[in-house]
Amino acid sequence: MTLFIDPAVDPRPAPLAFNPFKALVAPRPIGWISTIDRDGVVNLAPYSFFNGVADDPPCVMFAATGAHVDGGAKDSLRNAQETGEFVANVVTWDLREQMNRTASRAARQVDEMALAGLTPIPSCKVRPPRVAQSPAALECRVLQIVRLPEGRQGANHMVIGQVVGIHLDATLIVDGRIDTRQLRQVARLGYMDYCVVDDVFAMSRPD
Amino acid sequence: MTLFIDPAVDPRPAPLAFNPFKALVAPRPIGWISTIDRDGVVNLAPYSFFNGVADDPPCVMFAATGAHVDGGAKDSLRNAQETGEFVANVVTWDLREQMNRTASRAARQVDEMALAGLTPIPSCKVRPPRVAQSPAALECRVLQIVRLPEGRQGANHMVIGQVVGIHLDATLIVDGRIDTRQLRQVARLGYMDYCVVDDVFAMSRPD
Repeated sequence: MTLFIDPAVDPRPAPLAFNPFKALVAPRPIGWISTIDRDGVVNLAPYSFFNGVADDPPCVMFAATGAHVDGGAKDSLRNAQETGEFVANVVTWDLREQMNRTASRAARQVDEMALAGLTPIPSCKVRPPRVAQSPAALECRVLQIVRLPEGRQGANHMVIGQVVGIHLDATLIVDGRIDTRQLRQVARLGYMDYCVVDDVFAMSRPD
Repeated sequence: MTLFIDPAVDPRPAPLAFNPFKALVAPRPIGWISTIDRDGVVNLAPYSFFNGVADDPPCVMFAATGAHVDGGAKDSLRNAQETGEFVANVVTWDLREQMNRTASRAARQVDEMALAGLTPIPSCKVRPPRVAQSPAALECRVLQIVRLPEGRQGANHMVIGQVVGIHLDATLIVDGRIDTRQLRQVARLGYMDYCVVDDVFAMSRPD
């Protein structure tokens, strides 16, 4: 039996007890976004509405949904708007707990990088630092911020950035490629669930 | 040692033999996008530059990079532009080979759904059919098409759509939630690599 859901009417009709949307659009890569505000205060927060959107030139997007706990835009969005820059750090299995700590609804003045015991390290081309403990990070310049339809939790925005620099732990490179099994990226599923990329299979293009 | 890559200078400096971008922004969920053209010809193609961008109201994006093999925009993009509608079907382990077959660079008149031995089934609110064999599909109306910086392979575009209907195989619902282990979604990594969500771990929000 197929259930049809009209999100505008009821996003979780019986027998659903929770909204299934995020479980269906999964696994989602995590952009662990570092930004700075005008005063140089660092912000770090994980976004799973994150992905590449082009590879030549490389561009990524992250989307901030709803409002900040203190009202107004979420810090990453506001900082990206104000400074035009962000860094997307890669989250690995070893960093999962620290990543989760930076998901706390902290006040504006809190430096989540310090809060989670992480070390900021200067970027090359943008002002926000990257996370020293992360084996890869993408330095980005904001291209455009797209306003999405407003929901009950407030405005939704997507930040699109062009990747202007990539930091990569060279020990991850095996035979000229990233060794995915060694990288062990963590991704977001629905509910409180995550997965880690431990196993890989290959399929060649059909033509 | 940390390698710094400036994509504008050289996207794969030694010791890299391949561009690492898609391996770093991973695992990427796959939107198996069905569209129709003005004449009703069905198109079906997998996009891993795909994700949710808001959950209230639910919105997704997919990005089409480069040009069609015959020149001009890729079919999914052109059809979404012309008709304002698309469906994002979910790709599971059992559908991986069929999904890969629809990645072929087919001519415009080819119906990839038929080519891959899949069955179209009418959607509720939009004209493009969904894939009957897929256990979940998101019917979408185009909100906006964002033009991204042009690369050597041609123009890059992101299609943003609002989800106006969700089809879901009800046998996947256990205790009011999607049973992720039963769904077995397939995701895209770098190179020719994919992963499947077989195992899940949970982390509660820190606050």
